[in-house]
Amino acid sequence: MNYFSSKFKLGILGGGQLGKMILYSTRKFDIYTCVLDPSKDAPARLACDEFTVGDLLDYDTVIDFGKKVDILTIEIENVNVDALEKLENDGVKVYPSAKTLKTIQNKAHQKLFYRDHNIPTADFSRFAYTSEIDEAVDNGGLSYPFVWKSAKFGYDGQGVKIVKRYTDLIDLPNVECIAENLIPFKNELAVIVARNTKGDLKTYPVVEMEFHPEANQVEYVICPARIPDHIAKKAELVALKTAAAYEHVGLLAVEMFQTEDDDILVNEVAPRPHNSGHYSIEASYTDQFEQHLRAILGLPLGKTESTVAGVMVNLVGAEDYTGNVLYKNIEKILAMDGVTPHIYGKKQTRPFRKMGHVTIVNEDIDKARAIAEKVKRTIQVISE
Amino acid sequence: MNYFSSKFKLGILGGGQLGKMILYSTRKFDIYTCVLDPSKDAPARLACDEFTVGDLLDYDTVIDFGKKVDILTIEIENVNVDALEKLENDGVKVYPSAKTLKTIQNKAHQKLFYRDHNIPTADFSRFAYTSEIDEAVDNGGLSYPFVWKSAKFGYDGQGVKIVKRYTDLIDLPNVECIAENLIPFKNELAVIVARNTKGDLKTYPVVEMEFHPEANQVEYVICPARIPDHIAKKAELVALKTAAAYEHVGLLAVEMFQTEDDDILVNEVAPRPHNSGHYSIEASYTDQFEQHLRAILGLPLGKTESTVAGVMVNLVGAEDYTGNVLYKNIEKILAMDGVTPHIYGKKQTRPFRKMGHVTIVNEDIDKARAIAEKVKRTIQVISE
Repeated sequence: MNYFSSKFKLGILGGGQLGKMILYSTRKFDIYTCVLDPSKDAPARLACDEFTVGDLLDYDTVIDFGKKVDILTIEIENVNVDALEKLENDGVKVYPSAKTLKTIQNKAHQKLFYRDHNIPTADFSRFAYTSEIDEAVDNGGLSYPFVWKSAKFGYDGQGVKIVKRYTDLIDLPNVECIAENLIPFKNELAVIVARNTKGDLKTYPVVEMEFHPEANQVEYVICPARIPDHIAKKAELVALKTAAAYEHVGLLAVEMFQTEDDDILVNEVAPRPHNSGHYSIEASYTDQFEQHLRAILGLPLGKTESTVAGVMVNLVGAEDYTGNVLYKNIEKILAMDGVTPHIYGKKQTRPFRKMGHVTIVNEDIDKARAIAEKVKRTIQVISE
Repeated sequence: MNYFSSKFKLGILGGGQLGKMILYSTRKFDIYTCVLDPSKDAPARLACDEFTVGDLLDYDTVIDFGKKVDILTIEIENVNVDALEKLENDGVKVYPSAKTLKTIQNKAHQKLFYRDHNIPTADFSRFAYTSEIDEAVDNGGLSYPFVWKSAKFGYDGQGVKIVKRYTDLIDLPNVECIAENLIPFKNELAVIVARNTKGDLKTYPVVEMEFHPEANQVEYVICPARIPDHIAKKAELVALKTAAAYEHVGLLAVEMFQTEDDDILVNEVAPRPHNSGHYSIEASYTDQFEQHLRAILGLPLGKTESTVAGVMVNLVGAEDYTGNVLYKNIEKILAMDGVTPHIYGKKQTRPFRKMGHVTIVNEDIDKARAIAEKVKRTIQVISE
């Protein structure tokens, strides 16, 4: 099929910031693109050829949207998977596959998948309801502390809680969940694996995710990770093994822990462009969004190496502000060396909402990290 | 003024490939953008907030469009300058200024401007009509060979002819023109100067434009130019002097000849992002389109250095094809090292029409140049 022709149509489920950034590459390649999102103000409403407002979890909406495209991809996992299965059966190419999405959508299934495929991951127990955990502790089958995770619809630190004692369980929703061993770790790492429809495979360099000590949100993504080569190699192999197990097409971002004993454990995966790869727009030969396109269109994959070191800072809404967003001091960070802000275009800010990100590139990674800290201290996402 | 708010509106006259690429950066910064272009299928019809179809040379159309924006810029010089003057008087900020555009639009005025400001340029004579040239030659005021240039509306090698004998003059249009000394040169060079509304100034590295031996079109743009440092320094100074003379705001691409005697002569300028800066999307810390925005919005200028060597190849319509465009072998060039195609999205190809460009980046400039030649030999812009 000739993708560089207006007869071909690519569909994207979700028009948030990831969809918006995928569109940088569809515009560059002049690929005809249709986007479905529940919000008429979604960041990806512009730059696509057709924008449809609709519910990503509604079977008929996804079917109607999917029927008019040749290849369908996602920028968010929470979509109607039954509709994707039906579309696959009807000949629409869906990447990632409905099967993969189904496994990933449910954290209990995701963890079982790792266990079944001999992919290293923290030990865990499954529960149909949070209320059953109490009994397991009483029976000696589980002991504090552990990490409680909602099986469904948890992302960006939502649906996750460290449980140190019984009282920590009280406020949690009574839903399907897992209790995972709390692993002391040195670093959180991520590797993005790209695999195209022909099976060609490439990995991006291992990145390091520095978390905010309190907020449980990624504060800096640093590429390359400041870890020894043999650890990087190990993380890369675990990521490749994970992508192979999923028979994945597109990008697979594999988040991992480097434990105190230098073991690598898979935490979770995202079958799409990912926050841990945003640095690639400025720092890589081929950015992750273009790479995702190349992969799902069956084009040759681009070079994943970096031209320069990169640090990414998430721009999240400041704690005490809700309303029309204002990027205070953005001019000041634009004056800093190698700094590029990406403003997603969400009109309203609220505490901790992801409103954008800033990439800092430099030949010297320590300089990039120092400037990133200055950026973080300077810019403020507040309301008017 | 807060540009990162939906109350601010940026206007762009022209929605061709340059407008389209400016929109990559307005989307990145989430800047509200309005585009005016005569074609409803213009490449920049997508990704702007408001797209208007209208004649860029029509006074009322440009006034009506300009009245609704705060800052107005151009991606093409052939616009109604009287309308821009009126808009300036009414308080719209216009970059480049109507005055600068007026000088640049007419090649005779542009040349006089260089002479008046002591900017080195090839000697020339002005003529109200091409038919007057004949007499000047008879009088001994001019001798063959020389370069004939139409004063108005010439660009991309149109409106330019090397005149070696009387018969070369016969088919030329009888318009206002100049006859310029034919300068034997070693290289054609270009420097892009960025100057913001506050007067901050930065230059991009000197690039080298390799021309096709027959077609009189740029075949490769190479950054950095493969010239000695002292020549690069000289070219940079001439470019800075030129930008200063125009009191320019925005980008000014200064095209120059390096003569056989290593003199630097200004050929012509473009007061906007330019073909000679396309490599910057992949190879520079700050690409020229983002830089143009930073300049006209009065934001701090970004770093103009390259992270890696870059070579740009123009994708023009093959000679024998007219009709619905087809990019033959695009998959093959995507498999080459460090190759990124940019497809502008023009539906119809015709001989020598600019349909896109390809950037090749590599740590080693000679490797980049070699891959560029392979790209050029492989991809073909033909019709279906």
